[in-house]
Amino acid sequence: MTDLFDIQPVPGNLVPELQQKIDGKTKPPGALGMLEKIALQIGSIQQTLQPKLTLPNLVVFAGDHGIATTGLVNPFPQEVTAQMVYNFLNGGAAINVFCKQHNIRMQVVDAGVNHRFSEHPDLINAKLKKGTHNYLESPAMTLQECKEIMHRGANLIDRIHQTGCNVIAFGEMGIGNTSAAAILCHLFTGHDLEACTGKGTGLDEAGIDRKRKILAQAVTRHPGITDPVEILATFGGFEIAMMCGAMLQAASHRMVMIIDGFIVGAALLAASAICKEVTGYCIFAHLSEEQGHRLLLDHLEAQPILQLGMRLGEGTGAALAYPLVASAVGFLNEMASFESAAVSGKTSVS
Amino acid sequence: MTDLFDIQPVPGNLVPELQQKIDGKTKPPGALGMLEKIALQIGSIQQTLQPKLTLPNLVVFAGDHGIATTGLVNPFPQEVTAQMVYNFLNGGAAINVFCKQHNIRMQVVDAGVNHRFSEHPDLINAKLKKGTHNYLESPAMTLQECKEIMHRGANLIDRIHQTGCNVIAFGEMGIGNTSAAAILCHLFTGHDLEACTGKGTGLDEAGIDRKRKILAQAVTRHPGITDPVEILATFGGFEIAMMCGAMLQAASHRMVMIIDGFIVGAALLAASAICKEVTGYCIFAHLSEEQGHRLLLDHLEAQPILQLGMRLGEGTGAALAYPLVASAVGFLNEMASFESAAVSGKTSVS
Repeated sequence: MTDLFDIQPVPGNLVPELQQKIDGKTKPPGALGMLEKIALQIGSIQQTLQPKLTLPNLVVFAGDHGIATTGLVNPFPQEVTAQMVYNFLNGGAAINVFCKQHNIRMQVVDAGVNHRFSEHPDLINAKLKKGTHNYLESPAMTLQECKEIMHRGANLIDRIHQTGCNVIAFGEMGIGNTSAAAILCHLFTGHDLEACTGKGTGLDEAGIDRKRKILAQAVTRHPGITDPVEILATFGGFEIAMMCGAMLQAASHRMVMIIDGFIVGAALLAASAICKEVTGYCIFAHLSEEQGHRLLLDHLEAQPILQLGMRLGEGTGAALAYPLVASAVGFLNEMASFESAAVSGKTSVS
Repeated sequence: MTDLFDIQPVPGNLVPELQQKIDGKTKPPGALGMLEKIALQIGSIQQTLQPKLTLPNLVVFAGDHGIATTGLVNPFPQEVTAQMVYNFLNGGAAINVFCKQHNIRMQVVDAGVNHRFSEHPDLINAKLKKGTHNYLESPAMTLQECKEIMHRGANLIDRIHQTGCNVIAFGEMGIGNTSAAAILCHLFTGHDLEACTGKGTGLDEAGIDRKRKILAQAVTRHPGITDPVEILATFGGFEIAMMCGAMLQAASHRMVMIIDGFIVGAALLAASAICKEVTGYCIFAHLSEEQGHRLLLDHLEAQPILQLGMRLGEGTGAALAYPLVASAVGFLNEMASFESAAVSGKTSVS
């Protein structure tokens, strides 16, 4: 897939000037902590000392998973995916509330939900199939399907980028998708499957044990796969594969990406296995309560902004982190310097 | 001082109904983590299932410290306090940027800066004296002065409350005030002074060692003080004592308080020693990098919202946490319930 995306590493040439600008602000050096790192990153991505975030978008990618029809890994029934899509379209989900609060444009993509939706201005139909196959029996999708849904993800980003948007957040909905993400986390990070598998939307201990056994069977069923796209095709959901393509294209457009939790992170694992430069464009919104997310973030050498004990998905962590990303850009552009404000620096006494 | 403030414990009577409302939202139980706890707290403070945050205010309390004139504990000279007040009034500080971003009304109080300011619409003159005494020689202020500045803090809150504000954030500026806060942290929490003393605005290791020795001398100079107001008077700054009075009055008005970092936390230690119910009205914005803040928060059994590696003061952590507090109120009011959205709950399979 690498040949389809033209992703340049985030250039480091402006780092000294950006750091000098940050250190010249009326505050002790480093006193804004992580916000300073984010300002440096966004300035580098945008190649300017005056970065701007324009028309923030958040896309919720929804898809269904064959495994979920078995009821073996998920406490909520598969119909909830479609029901939640309606909830998004009606403005009633958590992600609606947070996007509205921060003036983030939100769209929902049907990447492969097991339901036929009527047309709706905020719903993008990218469906190839009504959900994946159950990977206990056969690969979740064919390689061709996987590549096609990745392309649709890339095309969606093209359209959003053309509106003038330069910062995009990813969210997802799909009953059963913590299972797919756990397998991807295991295969891409090399950590034990057990360590990557958590309670999802609310399994109890017995449920988690069963989920671990089922997922181990799935991995055993499809041994020796190492190609990232083939891993995605075998275990991924359509929403995960579509996000993966979208992320690669967003990086090729030099967009700032805000990465939500465990499932969005699993899509990024695949994207970074295809092209490692993609992570330079990513800001990590939060540490999820879902087991495995810390391992995933460590593998990506990622520092999450928030740690709120959340595990909801939908992009909620990304939307909640957005104002902090905006604050990083804000202080870089708007704060006075020691010089302009006539504030004394540190004395020789230290 | 307790007799001056009429502080009721935050009532617990609405907790079951609030929790039921939270659990009925279209999300797995607990999936919004800390936001759910904040929603529960604010609903309880305001005694309603539909809490609202109205006219958020942030006040930066500025004061000078006698100890800072010695240059023994602070890498920045004392003049920086006044220079930063001008920076606040000119809109150039970090806290200006963040308050503007979140539509938080910001005011600055001269609680005792060693400088005579001209009148300014955003500057409140509450000065008794141009800074405290050096507590290496004598108490920072008299008991009478301490009580008077606490009253001025309470009166300020009365005026802000009268405008219709029900949520207030505290910030501070005062060269040398991490030293005062370290001593207060030591005396109120019982932790070693050394553990409570950190690098402030940027001391190196040798500087921290000296600061610890100097502060140990100060504590030895005034032994056996246990009354909270006397502790404040002996070691506190005017800005810290004024915040303490303001916090007690805000609690008596049942206002939601957003507590910033180490120095604001030290003021709250004093306030909670005077009346322990005050902390029920407090939301803790962030964990500062300043050594001692974790001990302080643990003593108050407080969970900070943010951990961004910041150590700037001014109320920056509180302003940055504000949108997350608003998100907590937002989801409680605006999210659909399982029932209203026709979303299925958990199945019996767990």
